[in-house]
Amino acid sequence: MARPITFLSDYGRDDEFAGVCHAVIGRICPQARVIDLTHGIARHGIRAGALVLRNALPFAAPGVHLAVVDPEVGAERRAVALRTAEEDRLLVGPDNGLLWLAAQRFGGIVEAVEIARSPWRLEPVSATFHGRDVFAPVAAHLAAGEPLAAGGEPLDPDLLVELELPRPRVVDGSMIAHALTIDRYGNVALDAGHEDLAGSELRLGRPITLLAGGVRIKAQFARSFADVPPGSALLYEDAQRTLAIAVNRGSAATLLGLQADGELRISPA
Amino acid sequence: MARPITFLSDYGRDDEFAGVCHAVIGRICPQARVIDLTHGIARHGIRAGALVLRNALPFAAPGVHLAVVDPEVGAERRAVALRTAEEDRLLVGPDNGLLWLAAQRFGGIVEAVEIARSPWRLEPVSATFHGRDVFAPVAAHLAAGEPLAAGGEPLDPDLLVELELPRPRVVDGSMIAHALTIDRYGNVALDAGHEDLAGSELRLGRPITLLAGGVRIKAQFARSFADVPPGSALLYEDAQRTLAIAVNRGSAATLLGLQADGELRISPA
Amino acid sequence: MARPITFLSDYGRDDEFAGVCHAVIGRICPQARVIDLTHGIARHGIRAGALVLRNALPFAAPGVHLAVVDPEVGAERRAVALRTAEEDRLLVGPDNGLLWLAAQRFGGIVEAVEIARSPWRLEPVSATFHGRDVFAPVAAHLAAGEPLAAGGEPLDPDLLVELELPRPRVVDGSMIAHALTIDRYGNVALDAGHEDLAGSELRLGRPITLLAGGVRIKAQFARSFADVPPGSALLYEDAQRTLAIAVNRGSAATLLGLQADGELRISPA
Repeated sequence: MARPITFLSDYGRDDEFAGVCHAVIGRICPQARVIDLTHGIARHGIRAGALVLRNALPFAAPGVHLAVVDPEVGAERRAVALRTAEEDRLLVGPDNGLLWLAAQRFGGIVEAVEIARSPWRLEPVSATFHGRDVFAPVAAHLAAGEPLAAGGEPLDPDLLVELELPRPRVVDGSMIAHALTIDRYGNVALDAGHEDLAGSELRLGRPITLLAGGVRIKAQFARSFADVPPGSALLYEDAQRTLAIAVNRGSAATLLGLQADGELRISPA
Repeated sequence: MARPITFLSDYGRDDEFAGVCHAVIGRICPQARVIDLTHGIARHGIRAGALVLRNALPFAAPGVHLAVVDPEVGAERRAVALRTAEEDRLLVGPDNGLLWLAAQRFGGIVEAVEIARSPWRLEPVSATFHGRDVFAPVAAHLAAGEPLAAGGEPLDPDLLVELELPRPRVVDGSMIAHALTIDRYGNVALDAGHEDLAGSELRLGRPITLLAGGVRIKAQFARSFADVPPGSALLYEDAQRTLAIAVNRGSAATLLGLQADGELRISPA
Repeated sequence: MARPITFLSDYGRDDEFAGVCHAVIGRICPQARVIDLTHGIARHGIRAGALVLRNALPFAAPGVHLAVVDPEVGAERRAVALRTAEEDRLLVGPDNGLLWLAAQRFGGIVEAVEIARSPWRLEPVSATFHGRDVFAPVAAHLAAGEPLAAGGEPLDPDLLVELELPRPRVVDGSMIAHALTIDRYGNVALDAGHEDLAGSELRLGRPITLLAGGVRIKAQFARSFADVPPGSALLYEDAQRTLAIAVNRGSAATLLGLQADGELRISPA
């Protein structure tokens, strides 16, 4: 049986890019199951894609994990396929940090190959669509059980591009955090978890104040949306065990004017 | 062979929510075929989702029908899995009316279980993403052939939340109807079928007048879009055998300023 | 093993239309793999759909290629299933030009049947949703291996509707071309390939001027996005070997105010 493939990109679904990658995979390894995690990563959103991979892949069966967010396609960035230390997962994509957080989540990288000139690539390789010509065919051959080492030239894992995330800090009992990602509901995931609250005066169940840009709003440190009235804001632990800001039946990003990387001060009321 | 799964939600495809549910299913029951009906139900659109399920499921093979439109996730609403009287279909989702119309379409419910604490759930269950942690795993185990009774605590079907729809009426030869759903083309499905025209003076092939809010437009009671000129409005029986309003190559909802639940008077011209 | 099916339409994914077609296919031929090329073709965009099919199908395994962009559904247009001369591909869709370019790409059509009254259709056939009632069931039966001739009435391939594309021309060393398609990044594919540059003074690596409507901008005839600075425009050969205009990390369509069919003059700087 073929290894399952997960697929994430910033291709959207309005164009045929993701569909053509599916077609390429289906031609090479028709028996592989392909699961679209999402193709709605913001265009060129390497960090957003990296976070989704890190959070989603533990819920997927070990297999081949194809990811394409590739603003530098056609330039000098490497194309890579990697094996993780834990669970024997195979990550395929551009070497721009996109795969980094997921690889760390599975214990780091124990084997890497550079695949720009993979024997499995589709020739002629276009200058702009390596998803179709390089990444999808490599993912398909790996799903079919071919060995990673046959897919390209060996590469020292220490040379791979890393990805840095912002970090929260506690100041005078408040927490200064940053918006990492914003979903389509306007929920804002922060660069903080429960463990980052140590030293702050923020307590579950208590009222808090949120300050972002010039906007100050009252909120609650709550367990779930249902703990506050419709239209009210809350700080909560989201489904990825990340601290997040939301508005019950509304958009926290809109209410606070927050964008990715925006800074937010969370204080006891 | 595994039972097929259909999947409907209001998760959209811009985020990874639907994709992660696919990943969870693929891990538990890799041989199950999963068909996405749509993830474009309007956020929190329980009635819209219930109507799509009712209209779409008769075209799908009997199997497991997973549906998640869940504004009260984290609150007290039940999570359920149900068996229908006809065709042995298994419905999985929140107990908020979403599954109701489809269940009625298949003869009502003969067996129900409460699955919030299902032995098949993923622990720890998050407060906000029961699609991943409760509904998808239950659907996957049912697809794999495990018995419904093993998925949770028995529940009296008479306790399930029902869903009421508005009803049309005939007044002075006209029909007063309501917008049930609006598709992306701006076609407006009404809460009426052919049988509701009894007593009205509306006849197929005749000119009519549509009145919604303060807007009055001329239209035709026609068989299909092609029976009226581009830009003209029509009343017709749509592909779900529901009466609907459309504009040939245009948007009826925009032209009439209609939103879901909006009232519309249809009179002979 | 069943033939694979590719599926393209203008149904979008916000509504359940594409999902219901998947459900119909799954009921008739559950073992067929179905690949969504895209459902994001602009509404009624017959030419846009035809171009995507022509460009994408060579990357897909030979099989059944279902396509539905059908502004005249319910009117007199034919519904057809076709066999191509090369690779034995089976195309299914409305006879409005949508299938034409792909059929030519595979050597033309050697067998055609009219399927409006196919024995495989779902009865009653609705007036507006032939994707569900005619095209999807025919595609599914063909995927299951049933012969094309059993799907409908024989039709002379010479009677099929053809599709004309605009053509570029060279005038005084410049090329006058037209926008064929615009993707979600604002990249504009032209009706020209490298071979159409003969007689022009446009040379790879040289500066050029783009003129569309009243807008004139400087650009580069380059190999890839990465060859120009962010925000700069380029003429390049895209992944379909078509000449195209793009802006590195921007939208060429927005910058030039170009829409489909718009005329563009490309001159040496």
